[in-house]
Amino acid sequence: MANRFLRNTCTATRIVSKLVTKAVFDFNLIEDGDRVLIAASGGKDSTVMAMTLATIRPALKRDYTLAALHISSDFCACCKKSVLSGRLAEWGIPFTDLAVPVIGRLKPGRKMNCYWCSTQRRTELLRYAMEHGFTKIALGHHADDILETFFMNMCGKGVLETMPPLLRYRKYPVALIRPLALVEERHVIAAAAENDILKAACTCPYGINSKRRDYRARLAAFTANGAEKRRMLAAVLADTY
Amino acid sequence: MANRFLRNTCTATRIVSKLVTKAVFDFNLIEDGDRVLIAASGGKDSTVMAMTLATIRPALKRDYTLAALHISSDFCACCKKSVLSGRLAEWGIPFTDLAVPVIGRLKPGRKMNCYWCSTQRRTELLRYAMEHGFTKIALGHHADDILETFFMNMCGKGVLETMPPLLRYRKYPVALIRPLALVEERHVIAAAAENDILKAACTCPYGINSKRRDYRARLAAFTANGAEKRRMLAAVLADTY
Repeated sequence: MANRFLRNTCTATRIVSKLVTKAVFDFNLIEDGDRVLIAASGGKDSTVMAMTLATIRPALKRDYTLAALHISSDFCACCKKSVLSGRLAEWGIPFTDLAVPVIGRLKPGRKMNCYWCSTQRRTELLRYAMEHGFTKIALGHHADDILETFFMNMCGKGVLETMPPLLRYRKYPVALIRPLALVEERHVIAAAAENDILKAACTCPYGINSKRRDYRARLAAFTANGAEKRRMLAAVLADTY
Repeated sequence: MANRFLRNTCTATRIVSKLVTKAVFDFNLIEDGDRVLIAASGGKDSTVMAMTLATIRPALKRDYTLAALHISSDFCACCKKSVLSGRLAEWGIPFTDLAVPVIGRLKPGRKMNCYWCSTQRRTELLRYAMEHGFTKIALGHHADDILETFFMNMCGKGVLETMPPLLRYRKYPVALIRPLALVEERHVIAAAAENDILKAACTCPYGINSKRRDYRARLAAFTANGAEKRRMLAAVLADTY
């Protein structure tokens, strides 16, 4: 009965574990000897990803190490970093905090925008990973992010492109991986709740106006059901991978 | 003033002519010496296409001939074929009517469906074209049809595919072309009205339940504006062509 109780109460966590395992094998995200750097914002996505990559390791039978890097931008005042680092320590993941003055790097006359901020943070992430000998950078983008990006690119840029589960750089000896590529956001949210993962992300004053929210709502209205959404994701991943 | 009046009253016809011309050049749909067979259902799409292919010929400076084939299925009782053949004669396009007993060809125990009907009609179209030495078969699918098909395939089959503007067969010495690929349905409808093109299509008792109508409505609700729709079409055509 104890086992059955566990199974029933941990459904989302198990779904996430299964889908991350599937993504690791399907897209060959992690290989023996990989040193994986988790981009840890403190939000539900990257924290659930960190927990999952730590807990599935014995079953995966792949020999890899994990570490987490948190990039604090200028907008990061509140950050519950001690909560985040505490949870990561539970899962055996060492934590580093890196401050990046995103506003201070703006060229004169330029306004702050999401593209600038994300470019700066990505650059620092890459630099840190290479300086410290990491082979993979794990990003917490989930299936809904990938579908939304597909539609944003299709409708806004006129191209069929999205974020791939695995992106190798020609110039750099490090690759980006998205272990949550097959996991829907609702399962990430449920797994976060099951594991008492509190949101400890930096608040972004620009986030509220994000175009992504508009696409998320339009896409939710368009999609008939879960099966259809999974077929859409399969189409997008098969074509862009 | 007379010219200006003409310009104002013929806007849609001119838009359609321009976009068909652009499609012919962009996708190299028609070459010198081509014998083009128009699949003429009698509906607005193929009739506007027939008119346009006839009227833009002098400006295109490509040496091609046109003929039209109407396939009458079992569902074709009412057909205003004399109206259709009369309009085609105005534009100098010879007309042929071919009866295809779609229901009679059903295997025992199988029910009538859209896939079976369209396969039978396509087979006859191909056979007729090859027997009579045509090099191209022109189908009246417009931009909205192409976008809808893309979403039907994405959501229903999990693949990113749609009807291409030009489809060459490996086995057959004939190619399918879709000269209306860049034309939105609203422009086809307006051009049909401007040129007094009445709907003389065969009525299909199965058409009302078509999945396509559902996708058309969902897509209309999803798409923010005309510019976005054109970018979506550009993405789909660039990727699938």
